[in-house]
Amino acid sequence: MSSIPAQTASAITVPVPLGDRAYDILVGRGLIEAAGARIAALGARAAALVTDEHVGPLYAQALSRSLAANGLRTAVITLPPGEATKSYAGLERVCDAVLEAKIERGDLVVALGGGVIGDLAGFAAAVVRRGVRFVQVPTTLLSQVDSSVGGKTGINSRHGKNLVGAFHQPSLVLADTSLLDTLPAREMRAGYAEVAKYGLIDDARFFAWCEGNWTGIFDGGPERDEAVAQSCRAKAAVVVRDEHETGDRALLNLGHTFGHALERITRYDSTRLVHGEGVAIGLTLAFRFSAALGLCPLSDAERVEAHLKSVGLPTRLSHVPGGCGTVDELLDAMTQDKKVKGGSLTFILARGIGQSFIAPGVEAEKVRAFLTSEIDAT
Amino acid sequence: MSSIPAQTASAITVPVPLGDRAYDILVGRGLIEAAGARIAALGARAAALVTDEHVGPLYAQALSRSLAANGLRTAVITLPPGEATKSYAGLERVCDAVLEAKIERGDLVVALGGGVIGDLAGFAAAVVRRGVRFVQVPTTLLSQVDSSVGGKTGINSRHGKNLVGAFHQPSLVLADTSLLDTLPAREMRAGYAEVAKYGLIDDARFFAWCEGNWTGIFDGGPERDEAVAQSCRAKAAVVVRDEHETGDRALLNLGHTFGHALERITRYDSTRLVHGEGVAIGLTLAFRFSAALGLCPLSDAERVEAHLKSVGLPTRLSHVPGGCGTVDELLDAMTQDKKVKGGSLTFILARGIGQSFIAPGVEAEKVRAFLTSEIDAT
Ligand SMILES: NC(=O)c1ccc[n+]([C@@H]2O[C@H](COP(=O)([O-])OP(=O)(O)OC[C@H]3O[C@@H](n4cnc5c(N)ncnc54)[C@H](O)[C@@H]3O)[C@@H](O)[C@H]2O)c1
Ligand SMILES: NC(=O)c1ccc[n+]([C@@H]2O[C@H](COP(=O)([O-])OP(=O)(O)OC[C@H]3O[C@@H](n4cnc5c(N)ncnc54)[C@H](O)[C@@H]3O)[C@@H](O)[C@H]2O)c1
Repeated sequence: MSSIPAQTASAITVPVPLGDRAYDILVGRGLIEAAGARIAALGARAAALVTDEHVGPLYAQALSRSLAANGLRTAVITLPPGEATKSYAGLERVCDAVLEAKIERGDLVVALGGGVIGDLAGFAAAVVRRGVRFVQVPTTLLSQVDSSVGGKTGINSRHGKNLVGAFHQPSLVLADTSLLDTLPAREMRAGYAEVAKYGLIDDARFFAWCEGNWTGIFDGGPERDEAVAQSCRAKAAVVVRDEHETGDRALLNLGHTFGHALERITRYDSTRLVHGEGVAIGLTLAFRFSAALGLCPLSDAERVEAHLKSVGLPTRLSHVPGGCGTVDELLDAMTQDKKVKGGSLTFILARGIGQSFIAPGVEAEKVRAFLTSEIDAT
Repeated sequence: MSSIPAQTASAITVPVPLGDRAYDILVGRGLIEAAGARIAALGARAAALVTDEHVGPLYAQALSRSLAANGLRTAVITLPPGEATKSYAGLERVCDAVLEAKIERGDLVVALGGGVIGDLAGFAAAVVRRGVRFVQVPTTLLSQVDSSVGGKTGINSRHGKNLVGAFHQPSLVLADTSLLDTLPAREMRAGYAEVAKYGLIDDARFFAWCEGNWTGIFDGGPERDEAVAQSCRAKAAVVVRDEHETGDRALLNLGHTFGHALERITRYDSTRLVHGEGVAIGLTLAFRFSAALGLCPLSDAERVEAHLKSVGLPTRLSHVPGGCGTVDELLDAMTQDKKVKGGSLTFILARGIGQSFIAPGVEAEKVRAFLTSEIDAT
């Protein structure tokens, strides 16, 4: 086994201290080149590399070569890109291909791709032979700062997104920030909404830093590594407090109740709205709603919106291409969400930037009034 | 919530002390009548009852009535009987039906059926909403003494049986032994092979008790409850020592290396061989092989065979309807098994009745010689 080349010594390590499921997230440019050594150090003999048709041609060869050079027998499994791949059929395809590749209990599944590949390959790893280890090599900003951290894996059902899955922590996450150089700008912006979210949840300083440094994140400067690492730290801290999402972890849903409703209304049609765009509108609305309820200064809501706008993200209901539906449709889409109990909804609201909290008893009528005024305002 | 009726006070309780996943197995006649109260006591609001087309018409109504009478909203999901149901398609069907029934995180999946339904519904419970609780109401002898204990759930892949699944412990197991009154005799005998196996593994006294009391087990006397409870105790003890099958739990595979090979050779065609019949032949062969290796008295092997024969189980390769294949085919089928490493095989062998052990380094050549003599002898 070769040792880990020196050029990767500059990676930032974010530990995720989950007891016997603890693992490290490494963040840095060029990590993929030395990935084989780091992955081989986990002690497996074989790896099934799962990727999609956009990412595979760009990076699968470099990664599988690096794995092979470090003694790991490697099979590459390439799936169609897009949310539709996160399906029962996708699960069957990945599981059977992983078994075909003779992956045993001690071996690895390696996810090379965005959240779609990470969620699907992670779920397959959770269930093939009742659980093999897996490694995340996230290739989108969203997956580097969000989906590859926390162990949630899964697929979609006709009843909704991510309704079938498992908690399965990776053994290692390699966030090579240079891979984002090829990411379409729209996907980059979408992922950025989640970066900003961490500041808005409980870290006003980080949000302010984002306001001042976002161009470096987009341009691939050292700010990008810093932003990814800080986001991972923020998410890891929440996950460690609440691994199986029975409490606190809900804070991560800031902006997501509105965002998910918009995704539903646009039928998950990514030509209209991608997840992060829904989140950007949702973040703005969560702050505007908090302001409307008298919880938060309107100026904070305006600051949130101004920043997301400067990045090029949509922030209002009127920004949804093809329209956001009626108030009733929005409410309906929202009450299909998990976070609903009885006649009232659970929202993540804020007292200001970096001061979000879980608000379990928000009356549906107040939401209706708010949405009505938002739609009227457009 | 009504209290638990007095008539079920006679149930035998077998605790499975797995820390925060601990649960009880209750064994007794007529448990299904009071099942609603016991299941409602777990604190759910709704249950999805999963069953098959043989078992459903016999027992689903009684169970769902009992659940409804105890305030649990209940949906019944009925699947075709047979091993083919333990498939990706079966998983999709159950998961979607469970979601359709609006089962939330605190609710329950209840498996009412044999090992096929238990494995499939348990796996669905493990992955719907990343895990809901489940209750086993096993209706075959095999499922009461084996598959419903230990938390292994799963489906088959085209690469082999049970290759996709999860460890997911039930919250409660209700083994109503009166349900076995309608079980086809052949299924009853097949399950009995697993009962005898527990004696053969490490409990010579229990095996002797079986020799003297097996007719009571088949006739539904109090011996049946005793045998089911004792089998559950035996399996639970192994599972508690090795929940995720990294060591000791392999002892439970006594008779299964040969048995699985025969199942493969007969292409899982249950008209030719059912699992328990393969196990019965496998148990006899494991003891005969142990004797041939000079590890165990031949008289013990003969005693094993005599008992399984008296119950009406097959015990020799020549008993496989349609033939057991050639030595090469058998060896081939065996080396596809998980328990193979390098040129040697892992067997569970015995020094005598109740004295089995894991033998990791059995040379393939010794197995070949033994199989050759067995086939020649027929
Ligand atoms: N598990 C979690 O905790 C969690 C959290 C948030 C989101 N998610 C899930 O993540 C998914 C969305 O993830 P996503 O936004 O990464 O989408 P994605 O995986 O679909 O990737 C977006 C697009 O970018 C392409 N792409 C990826 N990396 C690239 C690169 N380096 N260069 C060029 N193109 C590249 C992909 O092929 C795809 O077309 C959703 O399914 C969502 O449910 C999961
Ligand atoms: N999870 C585990 O640890 C474990 C252990 C051993 C076996 N298994 C699995 O168990 C499965 C076999 O289980 P099985 O032998 O119970 O088979 P099964 O579930 O197919 O049941 C056998 C037959 O009996 C019928 N039946 C069930 N209960 C009945 C009743 N009370 N009255 C009349 N008919 C009834 C069924 O409809 C079926 O036709 C296999 O898939 C095997 O892989 C799992």
